[in-house]
Amino acid sequence: MKPVYFDNAATTRIRDEVIVSITEVMRHNYGNASSSHSFGRGAKSLIEQSRKTIAKYLNVSAGEIVFTSGGTEADNLVLRSVVRDLGVVHIITSKIEHHAVLHTIEQLKKEYGILVSYINLTANGDIDYSHLESLLQTKGKILVSLMHINNEIGNVLDMHRVSGLCKANNALFHSDAVQSIGHYDMDLQDIEVDFLAASAHKFHGPKGVGFAFIRKNSGLQPLIFGGEQERGLRAGTESVHNITGIEEALKMAYDNLKEEASYIKEIKQYFIDKIVKEIPKATFNGNSGNLDNSTYTLINVCLPIPPKKAAMLLFQLDLKGIACSKGSACQSGSSQNSHVLTEILSDTDLQKPSIRFSFSIYNTKEDVDYVVNVLKDFITD
Amino acid sequence: MKPVYFDNAATTRIRDEVIVSITEVMRHNYGNASSSHSFGRGAKSLIEQSRKTIAKYLNVSAGEIVFTSGGTEADNLVLRSVVRDLGVVHIITSKIEHHAVLHTIEQLKKEYGILVSYINLTANGDIDYSHLESLLQTKGKILVSLMHINNEIGNVLDMHRVSGLCKANNALFHSDAVQSIGHYDMDLQDIEVDFLAASAHKFHGPKGVGFAFIRKNSGLQPLIFGGEQERGLRAGTESVHNITGIEEALKMAYDNLKEEASYIKEIKQYFIDKIVKEIPKATFNGNSGNLDNSTYTLINVCLPIPPKKAAMLLFQLDLKGIACSKGSACQSGSSQNSHVLTEILSDTDLQKPSIRFSFSIYNTKEDVDYVVNVLKDFITD
Ligand SMILES: Cc1ncc(COP(=O)(O)O)c(C=O)c1O
Ligand SMILES: Cc1ncc(COP(=O)(O)O)c(C=O)c1O
Repeated sequence: MKPVYFDNAATTRIRDEVIVSITEVMRHNYGNASSSHSFGRGAKSLIEQSRKTIAKYLNVSAGEIVFTSGGTEADNLVLRSVVRDLGVVHIITSKIEHHAVLHTIEQLKKEYGILVSYINLTANGDIDYSHLESLLQTKGKILVSLMHINNEIGNVLDMHRVSGLCKANNALFHSDAVQSIGHYDMDLQDIEVDFLAASAHKFHGPKGVGFAFIRKNSGLQPLIFGGEQERGLRAGTESVHNITGIEEALKMAYDNLKEEASYIKEIKQYFIDKIVKEIPKATFNGNSGNLDNSTYTLINVCLPIPPKKAAMLLFQLDLKGIACSKGSACQSGSSQNSHVLTEILSDTDLQKPSIRFSFSIYNTKEDVDYVVNVLKDFITD
Repeated sequence: MKPVYFDNAATTRIRDEVIVSITEVMRHNYGNASSSHSFGRGAKSLIEQSRKTIAKYLNVSAGEIVFTSGGTEADNLVLRSVVRDLGVVHIITSKIEHHAVLHTIEQLKKEYGILVSYINLTANGDIDYSHLESLLQTKGKILVSLMHINNEIGNVLDMHRVSGLCKANNALFHSDAVQSIGHYDMDLQDIEVDFLAASAHKFHGPKGVGFAFIRKNSGLQPLIFGGEQERGLRAGTESVHNITGIEEALKMAYDNLKEEASYIKEIKQYFIDKIVKEIPKATFNGNSGNLDNSTYTLINVCLPIPPKKAAMLLFQLDLKGIACSKGSACQSGSSQNSHVLTEILSDTDLQKPSIRFSFSIYNTKEDVDYVVNVLKDFITD
């Protein structure tokens, strides 16, 4: 039995070329980038090269990219500093953000007593833009934190609209773009976001490295204090091999984006069609059943399975070699419902199992056939 | 010209075996450790295995090891949380700590108005234990933060004595052990430190991973919020390959400690003898000229070179392929004097150049011969 990996929103297989780059760096470039001798300069130049490459793809300047240990740290860096250093007293967000954002904001509320507002959601999990607009009317410095692509239901934020509203109301805008960087082109001259978080392992790069985009002259201060790395914004000896890895992964993602995205889109559409045909009572959560307004990288299906039987579903899929997820990876082990689905599903639908299948170039239509058959068998069994 | 790397206190070459382990994990174990399917469980078991291995070497329980992105993050995690969550109002430290500790404490002072006391130092850079004792008499909850081995001058803290004083006075004790873990055996049942920071790249492991030892029931809270990784103490998808790398590096370091330490000790003694013989006017900073009370991994030499000429020294060494450092790596590019040497050297000695040479198993006596000859030529030139 060949395992089928449909959990690419949790994490992705590293590309072979990325592994080769990382290994090369570990072998030949072990200098500390802060050292002034040739070993150090070698490491430094690798890092600065990576920064430039990434900046170029996002159409920003290299100085606006700050490497971190991942998406979570990037979110924490931005959120904590806007409150502590930029005087933000009110954060507007939504209840279906990733925990890296939600839990950080809750913590900041505890520490600083900031006001936190949650934007109303439509039945499909889109944000209510007019509610956002009215929330933006409140007094005091505001940060809006909204993810670009929801990691569970794949809904896509209208970044232009939100950045426009923020600009018009003098609010800062942070976007957790962990699920979109590497999967969607992003021109940050065009989209006026102030801050953004990204993570390599979501686009076939190594785990434990990501970056924050921090627009010039933002005034942000570090989360982690110490040495003067990352122009004083993030202390700690740089993980040179991982940084080279994120560069290589992003480069390959964007250089092949058109073909790869259309390949994956086909998989998704094929998956949707197959489910509609074979399991007609299944429904798609959020916008995920519609390629027009959800990411091409995932679907989230609510399956017509009674609760008792549902308890065995993930276990059964696992036995059959199928990797997929109930919600975000962070919750997949727990018996709790996803905090995202809880916000948008009816009580009846919450009783049924919902499964996220998320795709990459390493998936095939045969994978889909196999999975849908297993699901169908399970349901009719 | 074969390059000579004498900057192992800044960072070390990764062992080939460690590179192989890391590469294997990147190739075959790309699951997210929070996922409940087989890919996830595979990643999880690698991480938990690493945690157990490391815990065993330090004689602690696995739950007391929290993986971080490095030593700096580990220092930040501990220092911030003791102030924010454990009610520490007074930190006692020294002026010759690493910036990961010093700058973090300065920041906490700004944010929380805590009291910070700096222990007096002896002429050689040892702490004045009786001054520590008297500082411990002040009221309010205290944390003592003192590094085990100083990264610039190699002085070794009497961990027993400090932990004893802390216990007797009901103070918490954190030790930045970034320069000692992997180089010195450490039995944490014997040494009653509460917290400790370590970093893989100082003992031939990968950059961008380290750990905090956090003694059970400490009450510490995260620095980085989000998912429930690391038992809720450090959010963010784990860098599985890097964690395997730190395990492998620590294992190799401790399994070969006796032979490797004695090999490096010989190099150090040989270096000292050679300098005494060839450059008799040179002096050793801190205790670094004496193997009995300094680490075997480095020396810090003050060279009899007038200031004007001194400006060319690092440049000249670099040209000759010699990697060494003026202070910690974080300062090596700057023209400022080391904050450590500034605390202990006389004004006259501060005028002269001081160089840290730091060793590993990859160095040879020939390296030493070469370097001392280059130094001698430079001085007499
Ligand atoms: C004593 C000491 N503490 C902390 C650090 C920081 O560790 P890292 O580089 O892993 O952040 C270093 C080295 O950089 C160090 O020598
Ligand atoms: C939307 C979103 N934000 C943040 C994160 C956290 O990123 P990282 O795992 O790199 O910390 C993830 C995934 O884990 C995510 O899907």
